[in-house]
Amino acid sequence: MGYISKRAIIRGVASESAVILGCSEVGEETFLDEFVCIGYPRREKLLRSSRMLKELDELSSGAKIGSGCIIRSHTVIYEDVEIGDRVETGHHVLIREGSRIGSDSRIGSYAKLDGRVEVGSRVSIQSGAYLPHLTIVEDEVFIGPGVIVTNDPYPVSRRLLGVRIARGAIIGAGAVILAGVEIGERAVVGAGAIVTRSIPAGMVAYGCPARIMMTRDEYDERRRIHEEADS
Amino acid sequence: MGYISKRAIIRGVASESAVILGCSEVGEETFLDEFVCIGYPRREKLLRSSRMLKELDELSSGAKIGSGCIIRSHTVIYEDVEIGDRVETGHHVLIREGSRIGSDSRIGSYAKLDGRVEVGSRVSIQSGAYLPHLTIVEDEVFIGPGVIVTNDPYPVSRRLLGVRIARGAIIGAGAVILAGVEIGERAVVGAGAIVTRSIPAGMVAYGCPARIMMTRDEYDERRRIHEEADS
Amino acid sequence: MGYISKRAIIRGVASESAVILGCSEVGEETFLDEFVCIGYPRREKLLRSSRMLKELDELSSGAKIGSGCIIRSHTVIYEDVEIGDRVETGHHVLIREGSRIGSDSRIGSYAKLDGRVEVGSRVSIQSGAYLPHLTIVEDEVFIGPGVIVTNDPYPVSRRLLGVRIARGAIIGAGAVILAGVEIGERAVVGAGAIVTRSIPAGMVAYGCPARIMMTRDEYDERRRIHEEADS
Repeated sequence: MGYISKRAIIRGVASESAVILGCSEVGEETFLDEFVCIGYPRREKLLRSSRMLKELDELSSGAKIGSGCIIRSHTVIYEDVEIGDRVETGHHVLIREGSRIGSDSRIGSYAKLDGRVEVGSRVSIQSGAYLPHLTIVEDEVFIGPGVIVTNDPYPVSRRLLGVRIARGAIIGAGAVILAGVEIGERAVVGAGAIVTRSIPAGMVAYGCPARIMMTRDEYDERRRIHEEADS
Repeated sequence: MGYISKRAIIRGVASESAVILGCSEVGEETFLDEFVCIGYPRREKLLRSSRMLKELDELSSGAKIGSGCIIRSHTVIYEDVEIGDRVETGHHVLIREGSRIGSDSRIGSYAKLDGRVEVGSRVSIQSGAYLPHLTIVEDEVFIGPGVIVTNDPYPVSRRLLGVRIARGAIIGAGAVILAGVEIGERAVVGAGAIVTRSIPAGMVAYGCPARIMMTRDEYDERRRIHEEADS
Repeated sequence: MGYISKRAIIRGVASESAVILGCSEVGEETFLDEFVCIGYPRREKLLRSSRMLKELDELSSGAKIGSGCIIRSHTVIYEDVEIGDRVETGHHVLIREGSRIGSDSRIGSYAKLDGRVEVGSRVSIQSGAYLPHLTIVEDEVFIGPGVIVTNDPYPVSRRLLGVRIARGAIIGAGAVILAGVEIGERAVVGAGAIVTRSIPAGMVAYGCPARIMMTRDEYDERRRIHEEADS
């Protein structure tokens, strides 16, 4: 049990049960925890293979994971994924082929990057968030637990429209963001909101459907008051 | 590590870490991936057993999985489940005892069929969808990511009412469907909708609570325009 | 593959693939299923360690699990967790450091107790529910599938406010509960509700945002009528 490809370059620590396929590269001090799969082959390759481990290994292009990362247990990272330095995943995370994650980002347990998803640096994606193919998440974004992003305005259509979440935006827990929407820089989406239109930079929206309720500056002021109430 | 019951008939390929219990039958070219459990015993059996693997194996009635299926990593399929041909699961899927899945259907990562759930053929269930005991999903239905179906109008009651999702219906991401509701043929539920009443065949509903907003024909026309905007 | 710490005291049954760290204590007739991790070290310890299994084992304070429990496959339980007797988890459950669970409670598949969460006795937490740091769940509470509880009124702030769900309360599927809210004794939250304010004891609220719609007594009467309609 456990398997490390002869083509893989593991500079960090892999658990005995880890399955690492293809010419995966894993940086120094990076930890691949129990029951993880790294370099998992995309569907097309899997379908045309014998599904024997040796062949899956040969077919896999591998994943690249930087240094100082923690890839926690039961996480699956597909081939052609690139992950920067000091990135951490929770447990049971799934990152599909073609995704990129910048340095110092954290991907919560059960979160799924489902296709080619671009995640910037210092991003926090909380537990169970779902980001489909074509989603773009810029630097320093916060995505709360259970957020669902979509990419098809009229499922099941042949034309997908990715959601862009710009730098410094905050998405509250359980929000649903419809396909093609743009969340502007430093914009805030409240918990449970259904976002059907783009939110301009620096604005705060919530409700079902989400409406603009205040500015980010007002939000930051309320946050400051909230934080001071403690002392 | 890994275990294949002597009673199991595996015509496809099982990973070394797969745990396969009881008289499970797995068809040709079907792939049982790393860290999967097949033929998992129902609660009543588990409670009265010693929980030793050998005994769990003896107690399990096994699962039946057709040919050409892909059961991806960390998936758990209970005993008394029947799965058709060319079905694929994502990673971390859970299918409880008594469920049936028709051919050519796909069950997304983290999706859960929680009890006796009937799923037709050519159905697409996206990531994280939750379908409880008594749910019926007919052929060619699309269920978006994070959809939650319920089965108890007054939890915790002694009388469950299953949801029926009729042929060709489309359920948008993150929708919540209340117990006993019927989603008619080719009906569409928008993303994030809370569905408190049945939706007639061929109608499109969304909102909280969901209201009928247009016909499926209008929806299909909008989809056509959306798809053509690309070219 | 599989690992049991020399410091661990296992009075029940552990699968061969289970990874059990630190001075974990597991009671009689408790079952640790395939691909589980018990006594998982908190982040601070992981970061300063070599990530070698032996060292993780030495660093872990272990988890305490009572007797007659079932910890189903792919579940991760952190160190410094205390679990009573006859508790069951579903599959792919995650319980973080510092959490406490009383006896006879059940934690559904994919549910996450994300930090120090207090759960009483005879509690039912359904699949995929998310309970963050500081959440308190009293005895005999029912939390439906996909419920999201939050703890930060202005993410990302430095002052978290836990949610308290008092004895006998019922939270419907897919509800989102905002930080600092108190759900009173025997209160009911409807499926899909966004709960922005505290719900008094014995009241029923639903909608987006949730409003009080009836009393628990009326709810119980409706449930009684619903249950009798069957016979």
